[in-house]
Amino acid sequence: MAQAETMNYFEKLAMASERSQSLLCVGLDPDPARLPRAFQGRPDGQLLFNRALIEATQDLVCAYKLNFAFYEATGWNGLTALSETLRAISPEIPVIADAKRNDIDSTAEQYARAVFQWLGFDAVTVNPYLGGDSLAPFLAYGHKGVYVLCMTSNPGAADFQVPNGLYLRVAEKARQWNACGNCGLVVGATRPEQMAAVRRAAPDLPFLVPGVGAQGGSAADAAAAARMEDRPGFIINASRSILYASPGGDFAEAARREAVRLRDEIRSALG
Amino acid sequence: MAQAETMNYFEKLAMASERSQSLLCVGLDPDPARLPRAFQGRPDGQLLFNRALIEATQDLVCAYKLNFAFYEATGWNGLTALSETLRAISPEIPVIADAKRNDIDSTAEQYARAVFQWLGFDAVTVNPYLGGDSLAPFLAYGHKGVYVLCMTSNPGAADFQVPNGLYLRVAEKARQWNACGNCGLVVGATRPEQMAAVRRAAPDLPFLVPGVGAQGGSAADAAAAARMEDRPGFIINASRSILYASPGGDFAEAARREAVRLRDEIRSALG
Repeated sequence: MAQAETMNYFEKLAMASERSQSLLCVGLDPDPARLPRAFQGRPDGQLLFNRALIEATQDLVCAYKLNFAFYEATGWNGLTALSETLRAISPEIPVIADAKRNDIDSTAEQYARAVFQWLGFDAVTVNPYLGGDSLAPFLAYGHKGVYVLCMTSNPGAADFQVPNGLYLRVAEKARQWNACGNCGLVVGATRPEQMAAVRRAAPDLPFLVPGVGAQGGSAADAAAAARMEDRPGFIINASRSILYASPGGDFAEAARREAVRLRDEIRSALG
Repeated sequence: MAQAETMNYFEKLAMASERSQSLLCVGLDPDPARLPRAFQGRPDGQLLFNRALIEATQDLVCAYKLNFAFYEATGWNGLTALSETLRAISPEIPVIADAKRNDIDSTAEQYARAVFQWLGFDAVTVNPYLGGDSLAPFLAYGHKGVYVLCMTSNPGAADFQVPNGLYLRVAEKARQWNACGNCGLVVGATRPEQMAAVRRAAPDLPFLVPGVGAQGGSAADAAAAARMEDRPGFIINASRSILYASPGGDFAEAARREAVRLRDEIRSALG
């Protein structure tokens, strides 16, 4: 346990991935409106849902990712669920704070403190719009992982990320910012061709890949586009397609089946 | 009170500005390391500091802005301070959630719910990197204000915002997204020439202007560059220069003096 806690994030991720033989990250993003009936309206509904999902999938994943929005939306109960969910996950499995935080340097320092010191996450997602000085306070936590949004999975990525190749400049800058070896990129599965371009621009940066499942990206195509020469170099996140695989009382079994299927699909794609 | 709560944000802001004859927004960003000695180490230190600052400045401001990072950094105590600070502010003074949130559409919906429904802020700052569909869920709250980061006040703005005029494209897009008339722009005071360019690109969008005081921007230059033809069309935020005007027991009086000075400087600049 102590070892897992002081280990570099990407080492911890590699060990978890080796152990589970998986590159699947499950996004624990419990939408209060979509909780199974038994958990609806309970103050601890999100937490109970997460615990059941963790129980059902923990041997199948290399990481979990918690998107803060779903917890903040339910106020104090949600923030309690966020913090308690972290405790429900084995310390050997790294947990990513999908918080997409960013601010000017002195303020970004405070966000980094919240995510890494108060809550104790292993990694965080950050937004690059404010530039290098705004990301430095996160990257300064050398043993923590920092995934910079590069090419996101939503249609709106076309508004600013694609024109003039902004996403590629983000990738190139991220390489420069990677002095501690703890920087990665968020690259959506919904645009495999652009993902391949990011891989060429940043051959050495690990990817966190959202957008498979509910958002329509193919895990196999993403795996082919994201892989590095000598190692996978990516993890693939799925949230809704696993969490809501069944709306009924068998949600956990259905989540497990979908997680197995996706883990195996990624494995097959790597050959 | 009921009136103030159902009023459109920009109407409420205009009324508060008219009442106080001020375009000054005070940023309540209590850095735990810089609290006056009497509040250091107390679980309610940030809240007590804020209450004293509100008491000292409420007749001088058109709005308050709370940067979430400073509250999240101190965990449960900080989040309690955030929520209690809102209650300490007169409902006639609009309060801006400086949260710089952004995510894909279904997730951004949850962030909007957290800021507007759970916490009850009047306005929010959002990051445009993910594009229009990621901002729509915020803008859909037509009576709430949404300030899109355009040109930020930090040196890192030069990394992505300035090259290829990205900040101007953000300004132009924001005009298109402004169907409800509730969209504004964050434009830093540290680059008055580029601020003037944003004003030309978006003659009708209100600005929230950070970067004066501790960050070195001039309030007078910003006022000149940000103003609209027929009305001010901007508010100027100051945080550190007011909050820490004195490190001693006279911090509230010193904050008041600095707030008066800055309010008057902005007024003079408008002639």
